[in-house]
Amino acid sequence: MNNTFSLSQSLTFYQERSNQQLAQWLAAQPYSDHSLLKAMQHGTLLGGKRARPFLAYVTGEMLGTAIEDLDTAAAAVECIHAYSLIHDDLPAMDDDELRRGQPTCHIAFDEATAILAGDALQTLAFEILASGQLNPNAEPQRIAMVKELAQASGAAGMCLGQAMDLAAEGKHVDLQQLETIHKNKTGALIRCAVRLGALAAGEKGLAVMPQLNRYADAVGLAFQVQDDILDVISDTETLGKPQGSDLELEKSTYPALLGLAGAQEKAQQLYQEALHALDAIPYNTEKLEVFARYVIERNN
Amino acid sequence: MNNTFSLSQSLTFYQERSNQQLAQWLAAQPYSDHSLLKAMQHGTLLGGKRARPFLAYVTGEMLGTAIEDLDTAAAAVECIHAYSLIHDDLPAMDDDELRRGQPTCHIAFDEATAILAGDALQTLAFEILASGQLNPNAEPQRIAMVKELAQASGAAGMCLGQAMDLAAEGKHVDLQQLETIHKNKTGALIRCAVRLGALAAGEKGLAVMPQLNRYADAVGLAFQVQDDILDVISDTETLGKPQGSDLELEKSTYPALLGLAGAQEKAQQLYQEALHALDAIPYNTEKLEVFARYVIERNN
Repeated sequence: MNNTFSLSQSLTFYQERSNQQLAQWLAAQPYSDHSLLKAMQHGTLLGGKRARPFLAYVTGEMLGTAIEDLDTAAAAVECIHAYSLIHDDLPAMDDDELRRGQPTCHIAFDEATAILAGDALQTLAFEILASGQLNPNAEPQRIAMVKELAQASGAAGMCLGQAMDLAAEGKHVDLQQLETIHKNKTGALIRCAVRLGALAAGEKGLAVMPQLNRYADAVGLAFQVQDDILDVISDTETLGKPQGSDLELEKSTYPALLGLAGAQEKAQQLYQEALHALDAIPYNTEKLEVFARYVIERNN
Repeated sequence: MNNTFSLSQSLTFYQERSNQQLAQWLAAQPYSDHSLLKAMQHGTLLGGKRARPFLAYVTGEMLGTAIEDLDTAAAAVECIHAYSLIHDDLPAMDDDELRRGQPTCHIAFDEATAILAGDALQTLAFEILASGQLNPNAEPQRIAMVKELAQASGAAGMCLGQAMDLAAEGKHVDLQQLETIHKNKTGALIRCAVRLGALAAGEKGLAVMPQLNRYADAVGLAFQVQDDILDVISDTETLGKPQGSDLELEKSTYPALLGLAGAQEKAQQLYQEALHALDAIPYNTEKLEVFARYVIERNN
């Protein structure tokens, strides 16, 4: 209980830090009163758990890096996440009208503006990585960070996962295919958040990358399993988006393939894998541990 | 006539080089038989003048850089251009069914795939810049190149221009507003193509950047003026897209504001400005000169 309490404080702390950073980057754009910018702000600043910035921050801090040298990694990865939500919600994709309890971007603005706002948020992610503050020790890693984010986001990562997910609608998908979809759709960017935090820590980060990869892969998949579970057992108000939408879209999910109890067991198993990966890291991994538990215990 | 002939050969040469490079980058992605990849190929490889790669190549070569050290800049900027066309053609944007004489991406595939293909092409542009070959002299400029491309493409450049263009449909726009739209919508990426070519040449490029900026700004605007002129005077077959579509969408254009003769005079004026900027560059600027003339004399 004590951990849960401090996690909640910790999540809020990094969430606020992340919001502030994103707001600053958006405010620095010209034409900030243009609907394009307002749509980018809508898609970025109205809520969100900031799980990816959290992971970038706590990974980097665990490795001894100052928070102001981690803002760049955290903001960049969240811009990619925010753009992907705006595009995924479009009528041609998941056709969602509600996100984080707010009208989705194309409802609050219009489809063209939502497409462009997503596009420009993706661009902003790379601008942030190219120009944001890094620790001088991490400067040699800056290009690796750009490459990392690109590989996690594009046709070998997140975009591929979303395309696979759409192609799988209404079709039978086995467990292995489902894992491939989610490894790309959500896993790639979660792994990237951890890796960017580590790269922003310079050499120290490189030394523990294999362990961090294992942790992030387990947590990323657990995140999706729990999302699927919540779509079955939670309600629209708690979720901030329509409950039961996976079922409606005939999406394959972990509860559909494994049953609810089987999915919950899978989430537990992944949690144990995440903890096991952290065992091999010679730093204080407490925040990463607590986050892994949060992932499988959260209710929204 | 001799110049025109050699320009045509030169355009074809760089076009083929650029196509080959783009094909290689796309083939290197995993899941290359997935519809996402096929849509990315469709949007990238079926035709296109490759004006931006041309500018990156000839600028860098003028400064003494080997062609294989310019492939990275050329391919990256073309990926951004290709993604922007896929998204601009979407039903929620310009709603075009024909591009380069082919069905647009959302017609050949579907809207969701077209959105994702555009998204992933943008990502690929940054992956290319982060990992493609550069001359060792230009290695210190790699991050500047990422920043350059991001600033030209996003909410302070191309995306902003497209948003402004959409917002201006059906409204009266004066000449200054029209220039602001096009400076962002097309000008920013054309300028970026020239600048990336110069950055890929290392120190030598930095020294002539102000002159190159003036050249690129004039050529970029001339490009748009000529596009507007062609929309009035050409035919659908030559254009590879519907003639008269600007009029149909109630877009403000140079011929609408200045008359056809006025727009042609404006194009001439910009051509002279481009030549004037090149006068101050102590290298062989012939290809850039000939390209500027091509921009205002082309018929598609």
